[in-house]
Amino acid sequence: MHVIIVGCGRLGSTIARYLGENGHDVVIIDNDGERLNNVESSFNGIKIKGIEFDTDTLMEAGIDKADIFLALTPDDNKNIMACKIAKDIFQVKKVIGRVSNLNMESAYLDLSIDVINPIKLAVNSLNEKMFS
Amino acid sequence: MHVIIVGCGRLGSTIARYLGENGHDVVIIDNDGERLNNVESSFNGIKIKGIEFDTDTLMEAGIDKADIFLALTPDDNKNIMACKIAKDIFQVKKVIGRVSNLNMESAYLDLSIDVINPIKLAVNSLNEKMFS
Repeated sequence: MHVIIVGCGRLGSTIARYLGENGHDVVIIDNDGERLNNVESSFNGIKIKGIEFDTDTLMEAGIDKADIFLALTPDDNKNIMACKIAKDIFQVKKVIGRVSNLNMESAYLDLSIDVINPIKLAVNSLNEKMFS
Repeated sequence: MHVIIVGCGRLGSTIARYLGENGHDVVIIDNDGERLNNVESSFNGIKIKGIEFDTDTLMEAGIDKADIFLALTPDDNKNIMACKIAKDIFQVKKVIGRVSNLNMESAYLDLSIDVINPIKLAVNSLNEKMFS
């Protein structure tokens, strides 16, 4: 699979490494060159320093042949914008955005874009552990 | 329940608000006064600016009567230190620490302290969504 990930924080870099190790063709984009160092030198994918929702950057990342697009920056607005471009302009089949704000989650549902809310996952898990 | 949370980032502030709304007695500690603003003014618990594993700070938070202690800063070392103090010195019954580094997870297991790894939860969830 050709996978494009925007946002090279802890989550983005971890999933990039994981997918690379599992034989996928991974490109990770961040506008902060420092953050791109979150993926080790052993990472066998491509790192691009650029604006996460800029069409030229996305073309350089091979978005026209991407199977999966993940928007994982900590910025809900950036993520939804990148997801919309990936889905509407480049017709990427599988698009998933990260959200923190619950209200933003419904915006994704309205656009029929998959969503992941790490805070909600962690709160649910904490709840289970606290009250079990 | 008397719950003490250290670390008032996105996760800490979200669970603090949630537990407060559910009738628990919540104290949240952060060494950064700015971050304490992550919980809204409507939060009915107590906020303390102080070092997360400092005994005086923990006493001020009522750790001697705490039922649950959550260490949720982004710093694995800080969290495990705070958890050890809560469990060994103050014998808090339910202690849960947040980790990012997989190696640190086994250190928690060795100490018989519960652990939550939000990155792992998010990676697992992304995996399910990507390949389902």
